[in-house]
Amino acid sequence: MLALRVDKKRLAVKNVSKPDQADEALVRVLLSGICNTDLEIARGYAGFNGTIGHEFVGVVEDSSDRGLVGRRVVGEINAGCGNCDLCRAGDSRHCANRTVLGIHGRDGAHAEFLQLPAVNLLRVPDNIADEHAVFTEPLAAACGVLERVNIDKSDRVAVIGDGKLGLLCAQVISLTGASVLLIGKHAEKLRIAERRGIETTTPKLATKRKRQFDVVVEASGSATGFGLALELLRPRGQLVLKSTFHGKTELDAAPIVVDEISIIGSRCGRFQPALELLKKKAIDVDSLISEEYPLSKGVHAMRRAGTRGVLKVLLRP
Amino acid sequence: MLALRVDKKRLAVKNVSKPDQADEALVRVLLSGICNTDLEIARGYAGFNGTIGHEFVGVVEDSSDRGLVGRRVVGEINAGCGNCDLCRAGDSRHCANRTVLGIHGRDGAHAEFLQLPAVNLLRVPDNIADEHAVFTEPLAAACGVLERVNIDKSDRVAVIGDGKLGLLCAQVISLTGASVLLIGKHAEKLRIAERRGIETTTPKLATKRKRQFDVVVEASGSATGFGLALELLRPRGQLVLKSTFHGKTELDAAPIVVDEISIIGSRCGRFQPALELLKKKAIDVDSLISEEYPLSKGVHAMRRAGTRGVLKVLLRP
Repeated sequence: MLALRVDKKRLAVKNVSKPDQADEALVRVLLSGICNTDLEIARGYAGFNGTIGHEFVGVVEDSSDRGLVGRRVVGEINAGCGNCDLCRAGDSRHCANRTVLGIHGRDGAHAEFLQLPAVNLLRVPDNIADEHAVFTEPLAAACGVLERVNIDKSDRVAVIGDGKLGLLCAQVISLTGASVLLIGKHAEKLRIAERRGIETTTPKLATKRKRQFDVVVEASGSATGFGLALELLRPRGQLVLKSTFHGKTELDAAPIVVDEISIIGSRCGRFQPALELLKKKAIDVDSLISEEYPLSKGVHAMRRAGTRGVLKVLLRP
Repeated sequence: MLALRVDKKRLAVKNVSKPDQADEALVRVLLSGICNTDLEIARGYAGFNGTIGHEFVGVVEDSSDRGLVGRRVVGEINAGCGNCDLCRAGDSRHCANRTVLGIHGRDGAHAEFLQLPAVNLLRVPDNIADEHAVFTEPLAAACGVLERVNIDKSDRVAVIGDGKLGLLCAQVISLTGASVLLIGKHAEKLRIAERRGIETTTPKLATKRKRQFDVVVEASGSATGFGLALELLRPRGQLVLKSTFHGKTELDAAPIVVDEISIIGSRCGRFQPALELLKKKAIDVDSLISEEYPLSKGVHAMRRAGTRGVLKVLLRP
């Protein structure tokens, strides 16, 4: 089968054998989505070699859970050991021995087939199109902000970054009734949020609103975004870190201590709330799809996904 | 009157006029304590010029609140504007226009007299000796950790740093019933905690206990302490930043996002809980007193306070 693979920072579509681990479900991929993390992995982040990709919708070809066979599914990307305290408490997302689809110890979704434990798979309601279902994983990550911070309609929230993740976070948070300001540099991306009634501005104009926000979500993945977030927060405000930065940034602890800021890391979220939002068509994901390519053009598609102005790029095996 | 002053990073005991702002209380200082922040200010931190010092016990000489006159008091160091939302909500600690005793816009406590708004002053119960009451401010700062993080007896807590603040934090947190590990490099300081039944270890040995702690309090003020704290925390653990660092440190956001860590800044705390602990003699502060000097020897006392192995140095006007 074809698979888009990273080998020592070299990216290529290769012909490899189908996954064959009998104790997991075999999934035929219908569509996969390129995430910024894929681009980082191709540059060497996480030291991963293998098939990349962790956003997908597919059909179960084989599983010991016979009820899944033939069903359209999405899949939680963290596969826990099943035995540790965290796994037993139902949160294998933080299992120290977990593998992560296309990121750590497990081949990923930019392929004709993938395998995952059957317990990771969730059936996709019929009214969700493949092109929407493929957003379940990043939308779950956006919903994950609300697992980490309580936000209600009295809160003033800023989201920094008008990329895919920022646009999803702004939309999800806006559903809480909180007032949301999306901060970004790309007028055409900001317009996607504006069409959902979300206020937008540029980083430069945002600096006029220092110390006015209860919660700031940093989804730009840049050190300047981190600095801006600290400026915008009120004392005792909460900064949600949603992106791993490209490289390291300088931390001056003094303002964090003096203003008693909380910095809250947020990675993955649970899939069920995301599927429910997609089912209700509560989130505009259509506007986030920029381009689609056959899997065989995966290397080109990755280049496009890294091009300024391009949002989600999909791959079809 | 005599006062220990910083002027463009030069430290000297000078003869200055008594405070004379009629709308505030005038306090005759009985004892003041040298804090690490004083040492940082003398090196230029916060750009403060004036009389330093913010830990004190004194007697009210004059006040429009006549009930205070002649009373022994300690004082909250943040003086708010009184008009902003924060001040009206009772938290002038974060008022954007506040002055801070001996730190920002207001002469401090290493002097024969100081002034503070009467509302900042709290009477000291008779059974608390001056030498204990002078610890109210740093003990309140230690208690402030519990304003920022919920800790109960099922929690595993590490405190990094066996200086004054670390020793106070470890004792305060230990009163919650949580298991506390104090991590430091000085056997004689660690013994103070051990005598209170607190487990101690060295930073080197602590690295064997990676990902085992629910809460880590960073009170060493060093970049290595920050890195160790991240190693010790379990996924979704909470890192309380208690010290402004000396300078900047490198932040790698990836582990904070991946392990969904919270970093929580903590500065000052409320005085009342600290006074209650001192009244109950629940905290060993005696062991934290290293040396006492007359105010006239303030420059020497500051040098001693910055010497390895020395804990609290007191000044008596």
